[in-house]
Amino acid sequence: MDSLSRRLFIEKLGLGVGSATLITAISAFPDLSSGKDKFYTGKKLNVALCGLGNYAEALADGLSGSQYCHLSGIVTGHAAKANTWKTKYAIPDKNIYNYQNFDNIAANKDIDLVYVVLPNALHKEFTVRAARAGKHVICEKPMATSVNDCQEMISACHKAGVQLAIGYRLHYEPTHLELKRLGQEKVFGQVRMLNAGLGYQTYDNKKKEDSFNPSDWRLNKVLSGGGPLMDLGIYCIQASRYVLGEEPLSVTAQFGPVNNKIRFAQVEETITWQMNFPSGAISNCITSCGFNIDKFYASADDGFFELDPALSYGPFKGKSSKGTIEFPVINQQATQLDAIGKLILENKPLPNHITGEEGLKDVKIIEAIYKAAEMSKKIDLI
Amino acid sequence: MDSLSRRLFIEKLGLGVGSATLITAISAFPDLSSGKDKFYTGKKLNVALCGLGNYAEALADGLSGSQYCHLSGIVTGHAAKANTWKTKYAIPDKNIYNYQNFDNIAANKDIDLVYVVLPNALHKEFTVRAARAGKHVICEKPMATSVNDCQEMISACHKAGVQLAIGYRLHYEPTHLELKRLGQEKVFGQVRMLNAGLGYQTYDNKKKEDSFNPSDWRLNKVLSGGGPLMDLGIYCIQASRYVLGEEPLSVTAQFGPVNNKIRFAQVEETITWQMNFPSGAISNCITSCGFNIDKFYASADDGFFELDPALSYGPFKGKSSKGTIEFPVINQQATQLDAIGKLILENKPLPNHITGEEGLKDVKIIEAIYKAAEMSKKIDLI
Repeated sequence: MDSLSRRLFIEKLGLGVGSATLITAISAFPDLSSGKDKFYTGKKLNVALCGLGNYAEALADGLSGSQYCHLSGIVTGHAAKANTWKTKYAIPDKNIYNYQNFDNIAANKDIDLVYVVLPNALHKEFTVRAARAGKHVICEKPMATSVNDCQEMISACHKAGVQLAIGYRLHYEPTHLELKRLGQEKVFGQVRMLNAGLGYQTYDNKKKEDSFNPSDWRLNKVLSGGGPLMDLGIYCIQASRYVLGEEPLSVTAQFGPVNNKIRFAQVEETITWQMNFPSGAISNCITSCGFNIDKFYASADDGFFELDPALSYGPFKGKSSKGTIEFPVINQQATQLDAIGKLILENKPLPNHITGEEGLKDVKIIEAIYKAAEMSKKIDLI
Repeated sequence: MDSLSRRLFIEKLGLGVGSATLITAISAFPDLSSGKDKFYTGKKLNVALCGLGNYAEALADGLSGSQYCHLSGIVTGHAAKANTWKTKYAIPDKNIYNYQNFDNIAANKDIDLVYVVLPNALHKEFTVRAARAGKHVICEKPMATSVNDCQEMISACHKAGVQLAIGYRLHYEPTHLELKRLGQEKVFGQVRMLNAGLGYQTYDNKKKEDSFNPSDWRLNKVLSGGGPLMDLGIYCIQASRYVLGEEPLSVTAQFGPVNNKIRFAQVEETITWQMNFPSGAISNCITSCGFNIDKFYASADDGFFELDPALSYGPFKGKSSKGTIEFPVINQQATQLDAIGKLILENKPLPNHITGEEGLKDVKIIEAIYKAAEMSKKIDLI
């Protein structure tokens, strides 16, 4: 994210502009996983962050609030960044890698897991290299830019006997666990329709000079694999799937208007899509880098439930036909890392809803959505 | 509406079930247009209601609260209904017509305007016959089931020198006038995206015996011209157009799942569509008879505004990035009839936003939406 999109993103979060950054914004939420509940004093899972972009900072913050994980290493192509992080997080020189010497991590007993936070198109390469080095892997979503890449990643981790998780932070967030319960347990009867939207206005229409930021990998199709659908729309797909507890049978999709043709020369600015589920439910979704939206609405036979804000970093607020939906605000990254870290430390398998197989399902749907939009036809997923 | 759909509709309105009907529900809202503000004592516009279905009852209620209009006549094919209405509204026998002798209304000086509230496919015939009889016409939305029919209606009224209005009740509703202002005056900057949905669950999935109601003309394609898009979706089209103050350049559309195949054998159960506007704004819409939704959200460069409930009979509630949006509840039908009645009594032309030309614009968009869904391609409107 460039500085303007970061500013707009923070404005959207309602946290004020100025010197604030995305990361301090996230740190500003109380970390309920830290404090007196911290009783675990055993061995921590030693994590190396691979890629030191903005989201890595959120993860570093999560790691510092984690009971079961410890930020032990970094992988970066920038010497200056390596120095800053080394000082800030007391990382020993022997745990600092660049993209060339990364494979040497195999010999490093002080790293248990590599968290891949690189641009989407690099997820496959570094997940496979980490697995070959014998490290467990958490890979950010979207898992990869193609179904084939996902399959290679799953197969590499399987062959190496390491565990692979996808960075689905909302699977550990209490408001979303409640959504899942309301939908899957049919608390308001069968859900018939979902309306989900996540978008951020990442440019200022009034400023011509903001027309293009060449350093933003998200606008580069080779690196990103696509536009907002990859990074934002995936939350609409995820939420639809876990609220219904079903896999879509087919999708239709439409590219939206391109209002900033320079910025969105390679990837879509806006896309709408519809997913049809076996129960007969429909999910009508929109994602964009041209406007703000952060909503989720479920209409069921005997009532409704909804969130707004719904899919961003929160804090989430919602209501149902029976009243408000509100849960304590947690540090999403710390909670997610603790849940994954604990299981790996105990040599237990990770749950299906965060593994590579789950990541692959989303990427398969994303591929179908792009195909449906390009071909202007319904694409079957089964 | 059959009794079950009426019950569900009323439940949706949050007004309780039991002996309540749609009409008493509407009457239950305070009528701010009546009472001490009533100062007009001149000649009233004498209105004949043509078609005495459920919505005619809402209009009769509006007429009884109207300053400028009076319910003077009825047109119906049911002798029993004619008797009930005659007694209830003190309608003289000479002002009661059936569909065969309707043209005799030409000689009746005590009828100034015919309000056509028949099934959609009959709008054209009775608008044309009323115009030929020298009567002004208000025709319910959708204006007709084809663009050709709309053109014939406009031309017949023009030739006869009578005025033609379409029954767009929300054009006189203060919350919607505020939406229009917020959008068109760019109070929150340029609107980039609209998300509009109106749907009612008109059947009970748990009751197999409710699978089909043969008396519901809305399920009969010849009479209705289509499914929920015709009667409910048109509100999403309207709101998008008057909030943006623009006409769509193109549409894409998708038929949704058919969960009740007997009931929806002839018309769609659910449809989603996207409208692209000259400013670059997109409107993402959904309408259905399979689930409840009643929402409108506008995302603009500098903020948002939204209603929920948004497009039904209200009462409407909303908020924007600057606070709540709430206006006094009015009798929508009385207010609409007064505004139209006053202008006709004063021999002034009706405003463009409610004339036949306006009705035709919506029907043109509806035709394009069906074509887009059937052909699975983007349909240009210009």
